[in-house]
Amino acid sequence: MTDFARTRALFHMPEGVFYLDGNSLGPLPKSAVQRVQDMMTAQWGEQLIRGWNASGWMMQPRKLGDRIGRLIGAPQGTVVVGDTLSIKVYQALASALDLNPSRRVVLSDSGNFPSDLYMAQGLLGSLDKGYELKVVEPEAVEASIDESVAVLMITEVDYRTGRLHDMKKLTAKAHAAGVITVWDLAHSAGALAVDLEGTKADFAVGCTYKYLNGGPGAPAFIYVAPKHTDKVRPALSGWLGHESPFAFDLDYRSGAGIDRMRVGTPAVIAMAALDAAMDAWEGVSMADVRKQSIALADLFIREVETRCPELTLASPRNGAERGSQVSFRHPEGYAIMQALIARGVIGDFRAPDAIRFGFTPLYIGEQEVLGAVGVLEDVMTNRRWDEPQYRKKALVT
Amino acid sequence: MTDFARTRALFHMPEGVFYLDGNSLGPLPKSAVQRVQDMMTAQWGEQLIRGWNASGWMMQPRKLGDRIGRLIGAPQGTVVVGDTLSIKVYQALASALDLNPSRRVVLSDSGNFPSDLYMAQGLLGSLDKGYELKVVEPEAVEASIDESVAVLMITEVDYRTGRLHDMKKLTAKAHAAGVITVWDLAHSAGALAVDLEGTKADFAVGCTYKYLNGGPGAPAFIYVAPKHTDKVRPALSGWLGHESPFAFDLDYRSGAGIDRMRVGTPAVIAMAALDAAMDAWEGVSMADVRKQSIALADLFIREVETRCPELTLASPRNGAERGSQVSFRHPEGYAIMQALIARGVIGDFRAPDAIRFGFTPLYIGEQEVLGAVGVLEDVMTNRRWDEPQYRKKALVT
Repeated sequence: MTDFARTRALFHMPEGVFYLDGNSLGPLPKSAVQRVQDMMTAQWGEQLIRGWNASGWMMQPRKLGDRIGRLIGAPQGTVVVGDTLSIKVYQALASALDLNPSRRVVLSDSGNFPSDLYMAQGLLGSLDKGYELKVVEPEAVEASIDESVAVLMITEVDYRTGRLHDMKKLTAKAHAAGVITVWDLAHSAGALAVDLEGTKADFAVGCTYKYLNGGPGAPAFIYVAPKHTDKVRPALSGWLGHESPFAFDLDYRSGAGIDRMRVGTPAVIAMAALDAAMDAWEGVSMADVRKQSIALADLFIREVETRCPELTLASPRNGAERGSQVSFRHPEGYAIMQALIARGVIGDFRAPDAIRFGFTPLYIGEQEVLGAVGVLEDVMTNRRWDEPQYRKKALVT
Repeated sequence: MTDFARTRALFHMPEGVFYLDGNSLGPLPKSAVQRVQDMMTAQWGEQLIRGWNASGWMMQPRKLGDRIGRLIGAPQGTVVVGDTLSIKVYQALASALDLNPSRRVVLSDSGNFPSDLYMAQGLLGSLDKGYELKVVEPEAVEASIDESVAVLMITEVDYRTGRLHDMKKLTAKAHAAGVITVWDLAHSAGALAVDLEGTKADFAVGCTYKYLNGGPGAPAFIYVAPKHTDKVRPALSGWLGHESPFAFDLDYRSGAGIDRMRVGTPAVIAMAALDAAMDAWEGVSMADVRKQSIALADLFIREVETRCPELTLASPRNGAERGSQVSFRHPEGYAIMQALIARGVIGDFRAPDAIRFGFTPLYIGEQEVLGAVGVLEDVMTNRRWDEPQYRKKALVT
C-alpha cells in the first residue's frame, strides 16, 4: 500500500491553503529547490559547456521519459520529454497523419483541450490537402469512428468535467476501422493508471506540470508505440532528433526510435525540477492513487451536494467514469471561485460556468477535502461571492 | 563607455578556467541562482496556481522579448520568448512562406546551422507542394537571390567560422526581388549590434543560452516586423497565441501582434534564470561590446598565428566580417580541443576539423585571451593532444 503520509511530506504547502488545483499546477516538491540550485551552481556554474557530457544533460529527456513511462504503461525507451504539450500534439498528429495517408478526417471532440484543436487547425491549414477536423460531442466519438477517419485525437480526461473516455475501447474500435490514435494524457498522467501498451495506443502526449508536479511550464512528453517509431517521419525535424546531431550534416536523417521526436536543445534547468518531482513517485502505486482519488472526489461530491444545493454537479457521478477532478456548475462560478481563493481554497474556473477541483492523493487527504467543503458552504450560504472584486476577471482564470 | 569590470563581476567563473565558449553556453549569472530560488519558493511554492497572475508569469515572454529587443534593434512589442530555436525557425519560415505564396524556393546556405536546414526540410516535406530548399555556398547567397525565391533563410553569423553575412545588404537585395527574409541571430544577439528595424528584416529568431547567458536550454525568441504581424497565420497555433486563451473557444483566432507567435505554456522557471541574465545588459552598449570583442579576437588571432603556426585560421581576418568567435583548423582539431579543455581552456570543436573560441567582453578580457593562447601554445608545441584519451569522442562535442 502506498504511503501517502510519506509523499505528502515531500511537498511544500502554504499555511492556510486547501489546494485542490494540482490538476492545473502541481505544488512545489521540496527537493526541487535544492536540485535546481545544484544543477545551476555545481553543473552550469562549474562545468559550463562540459555539463552536457559530465552531467548527462543530453540524456535527461530520455531518462525522464522512462520515469514517466512507468506511470503510463509505456515500455522503456518509448517516451521522451521536451517542448510544450501543444508542440507535442502537433508532432504526434503530423506523424499519425503520415501513417494514414489516404484518409482526410481528424476526429476529435468538443471536450478536447482547445489548444489541441488549435494545433490541429494550424497543421491541417498548413497542409492544405483537404483535411477536415471533425469535432463531435464526447458522447458521439465512438459512433463517429469509421473508415473515413485518419486519426482519432482525443484527450482522455475532459479538462472541464473530468469525464473519462474509455481508451481501450475507443482505441480498439479505431484500429478495427484502420484509424490511428493520438491520446492526450494531460489530465491522466499521474492521476490514473494509464496503460499505453495494453490499450495499444499509437501516440500519446502529456504535460508534467499538473499531476507530475514539474513546475509552471515544465516540459511535455510524447510516446510513440514501438511498432510505429521507425516509420515516423518527424515534421518537426530538429537537430536533436537527428541520427548524429554533432556530425552537423546538411541533411536530416532521423535518429533511432523515440529520439527522433526530440527537436531542439533540452531545457536543462526545467528538467532538474521535473527530475526532483519524479522522485515522489518512487514506491507509489498508480492503482492506490486512483483508488484514493476516487474516494476523495466521492466524499467531496457527497458533501457539496448535501451542503451546497445551489451547485450542480458537472462531472460524472460514477468515479470509474471520471478522472481525478470534479466540477460543479453555477452561473456565478467565476465569482464563487474568486471568493474561495480569497479564503484559501484554491481550485479554478473554466468558462463558462464551471468551478473545478482536483484530488491528488500524493499531498491531499480527507482533511483538506472536508476543510474545503466547509469554506465552500460558507461562501454559498452567505453569498460571500457577491462582492464586486470577485467579478473582476484576471488574465489567467 | 560600458563598465566591463562591473559586468564581469556579475558572472561566476570556475577557478583555473579560461572560458572561450560563451558562444555555445554562456556562464552562470550569479544572481540567477537566487532569482530562480525565489521564483520556486516565494512564487510557485507559496502562490501556487495564483502565480500566473500574482507574479506575472503569463507576461514574462513579452517582457523578456522587450529586453532582448533592445539588443537587436527591435521595437517594443515585436519580440516574444518561448520554445526552442528550432521551433522558432519553423514558425518563422512557415509564416514567411505564407506571405509569399506564389513562389517555391527557400534559399539558404551551407553555413546555416544544420537544425535550421533540418526544420526547413521537415516543413517543406510536410507541405508537399513542390517547395525546394536551395542550399548554396555562403559566398553565393547574394547572387542567388532572384524572383524565384520565396524566402531567404540565413544565419547571420556562421556557427563554425564566425563569418558574418551583411544583413542590411542581403535584406535589401531580397526585398528588391520580392523575397521575405528570416534571420537566425543565434550567434548575433548579445554579440554584435543587430539592427532589425534599420535593416528591415522580416523575421528573426535566436536563442538565449549563448551570448545572453540564460542557461542550458534557455528559451528562444522570435521577432516579426510590425508590418507583417497581423498578416501572419501561425502554423503552430497554440492556445497562448489565441486572442483569448482563457475563453477556451473551440476555434483558433490569432491574438494581436507578436502574441500570436506564442504557442504553449511558458517555461516559467527557465525564464526566471533568463530574466536575471538579462540584468547584466543594463547599461551595456552593444557598440562597446562589439568593439571589445573584435579587439580580443584580433589579439587572439595575432598571438595564435605567431605562436602556433600549425593552426590555420578558418575565420575572416577582418573583424568587421566576423561575429564574435574565431576558429582555427587542424586535422587533429578534436584531440587538440580535448587537450585544451583538460587544461582549463574551454572552447569547442565543430566537425570536421575546427576548434572554435568565442570572445565575450561581458566576462572575458585580455588576460583570459593571453592565458588561453599560452596553454594552446603548450598543447601544440609539445603535442599534448597526442594521447589516446583525447581521441575518444564524447556524446556532445
